[in-house]
Amino acid sequence: MPEFLTLLPPQESLDKLLRNLPVPKLATEKIETASALGRIIAADLGAPHALPEFPRSTVDGFAVKAADTYGASDSLPAYLNLIGECPMGATPDLEIISTTTAIIHTGGMLPKGADAVVMLEYTQTVDNEIEILRAVADGENVIRIGEDVAQGALIKPKGSLIRPAEVGGLMALGFVDVEVLKHPKIGIISSGDEVVPPEKRPHPGQVRDINSYTLATLVEKYGGEAIVYGIVSDSMDAMKKAISRALDECEMVLITAGSSASSRDMTAAAIEALGEPGVLVHGVNTRPGKPTILGVCDGKAVIGLPGNPVSALVNGYVFVAPLIRCLLGQDAAELRPSVSAKLTVNIPSQAGREDWIPIKLKQDSDSFLAEPIFGKSNLIFTLVAADGLLKIAPDATGLSAGEIVEVIFL
Amino acid sequence: MPEFLTLLPPQESLDKLLRNLPVPKLATEKIETASALGRIIAADLGAPHALPEFPRSTVDGFAVKAADTYGASDSLPAYLNLIGECPMGATPDLEIISTTTAIIHTGGMLPKGADAVVMLEYTQTVDNEIEILRAVADGENVIRIGEDVAQGALIKPKGSLIRPAEVGGLMALGFVDVEVLKHPKIGIISSGDEVVPPEKRPHPGQVRDINSYTLATLVEKYGGEAIVYGIVSDSMDAMKKAISRALDECEMVLITAGSSASSRDMTAAAIEALGEPGVLVHGVNTRPGKPTILGVCDGKAVIGLPGNPVSALVNGYVFVAPLIRCLLGQDAAELRPSVSAKLTVNIPSQAGREDWIPIKLKQDSDSFLAEPIFGKSNLIFTLVAADGLLKIAPDATGLSAGEIVEVIFL
Repeated sequence: MPEFLTLLPPQESLDKLLRNLPVPKLATEKIETASALGRIIAADLGAPHALPEFPRSTVDGFAVKAADTYGASDSLPAYLNLIGECPMGATPDLEIISTTTAIIHTGGMLPKGADAVVMLEYTQTVDNEIEILRAVADGENVIRIGEDVAQGALIKPKGSLIRPAEVGGLMALGFVDVEVLKHPKIGIISSGDEVVPPEKRPHPGQVRDINSYTLATLVEKYGGEAIVYGIVSDSMDAMKKAISRALDECEMVLITAGSSASSRDMTAAAIEALGEPGVLVHGVNTRPGKPTILGVCDGKAVIGLPGNPVSALVNGYVFVAPLIRCLLGQDAAELRPSVSAKLTVNIPSQAGREDWIPIKLKQDSDSFLAEPIFGKSNLIFTLVAADGLLKIAPDATGLSAGEIVEVIFL
Repeated sequence: MPEFLTLLPPQESLDKLLRNLPVPKLATEKIETASALGRIIAADLGAPHALPEFPRSTVDGFAVKAADTYGASDSLPAYLNLIGECPMGATPDLEIISTTTAIIHTGGMLPKGADAVVMLEYTQTVDNEIEILRAVADGENVIRIGEDVAQGALIKPKGSLIRPAEVGGLMALGFVDVEVLKHPKIGIISSGDEVVPPEKRPHPGQVRDINSYTLATLVEKYGGEAIVYGIVSDSMDAMKKAISRALDECEMVLITAGSSASSRDMTAAAIEALGEPGVLVHGVNTRPGKPTILGVCDGKAVIGLPGNPVSALVNGYVFVAPLIRCLLGQDAAELRPSVSAKLTVNIPSQAGREDWIPIKLKQDSDSFLAEPIFGKSNLIFTLVAADGLLKIAPDATGLSAGEIVEVIFL
């Protein structure tokens, strides 16, 4: 069959895979909020009480009845009697009635009867008499009860990422524990008779396993738990056994094929044999990454990535990252951190194919220059040297020097 | 003293602090490369051997002497005798001499005598005779010895962040362990008589400690280790004792003041008392964050952040993150992940002051809309609801609806 009939573009390939996957079952666990950075909230959380629970001053100054200050100015101050000081961290045991005031500190609880605070800067103290030099409106310089969050309000919907701000919001309401989604387990299998574990000194003709580790850290980066199954020999039996075990133990399975065509074909055959519907996409119209295989075995995604380490990692970003997001109840598409930069040279590209080019960023006064790192697509050090990747869309025939492009961080 | 004479803009404040800090001593530790995602390489690493160590084919095809193919075309093929197949993962025990060829797979080691590979697609096999339909140049479809990395070449300079690509590069060369910088210890002290631990139900007038936890997760996010010392009462003795202990045990100390002016003044006095040169900046021309205090005690940065949780967290991003980067041997300035978006409304701003506005992003066909979240600056849920922050530079008097702005992710 001619190749151009069989290769789908990456986005279409991913969409086809996603259509064949069930809605993921999201396992949850309760963990300490203080350790929840980067995790995903598992259930909608309502505020158990209002925040704040009492009216608080936002400034240092004097608690007043706003009406007592109306018309006050430098030339015509309002005069109020000082009746005390509001303590920090406790209910003030005093009451503001007309023509009286009390000292209050930022964050302090408003005393009974007060409805506003005049900033210290707009007052003068003469013995026990306070001159108010500026009027305040009802509620001015005060946080009302529930102004931060009302009782029962949704704090943050399920599926939200926990950042430092969320940790703060949860702690403010007393949630010292939080129900989060478990890290989905992603099984990683390497194959290839030429591949040896990294701790071994390779013999001539052998290379160390890179892909198990680049993919494991990619999985970790995107919130999955990598289960590394090691290197499986290029035999159909061994391959089927390894994938089958990984399918039992994990939510998704990644296989980096040995780099030969026969090894890739074996991956596809194993996926076909191990569950329905089997291989959905065999070959993607992208560079690097053409030999990528996308399949589903009885509800679980199985991805066959090329043995070439650049291809495996780039297509990890393209296919594996969105699938982990789905397993965490997120949109497959993410807002990938990127930076705008000016391309330094022309880059040719074949129409109909999506290209991913490693880019080195250079600072150029206030902006960035994007310098492509050319080199054969199987050199891992082209990615080690790169700051990010530039995607050339399938409908482009290349990019021109001077164009402003988006470089996606690696 | 008039306020405008004493308040420095944030960048100037940070620069002043940095000028008063010694070059940090960077402690190191050896860890497994497989667990090193996000860590910083501690020492320049040279390649112990070339990568690859043998010439490898990048395609499936036939190993040849390039000269044998010169002039070959569909109409005038070159004819070569097939003498065998190169095994995967071992040295081929055959030699290519003129007019002979051998099957080779992607990633396979080139046999002796061969200097190029012809892709399978450009050949035809007739019994033991291979028709070569296209010429190849010397080295074509081959990765040369050391083409990925030459022996002794610098893999990655010290100070580099370890991403999935670096994990791959290290593993490729057999570095299963790697020397990385230790997480610098950042001490965090909360104060304020109104503040209670988050597991406690606050009485009227009390609030839960938020700042210890937002700052601890911010520290974690930027590669530090947070040491949380809890809540210290608003007394000079207790404050000095706590800061002094934290200075002994940590590389930097953060104090979030009680929200009252007297509590802030106490922080400054404690910093002055505990080491030289003491307080360098007392008040920063930014909103939120005006009461921020920057100091150095005998070579260690001590930062007094406002008690207001929004101010503490925003100024954590502004001041604490760059200082942790310095403690990790990085440039203080970082390329903060951001996204361009179109502002939905006018935002006024006071000239001379740097403003930080919480922003909610909304998708608008292909682009983003930046919708400011207005609200008193002490409401933590304005940050919980925000996707990022918008900085309004001190020399601006505001931004206009429709302007394209950079929103920095929280």
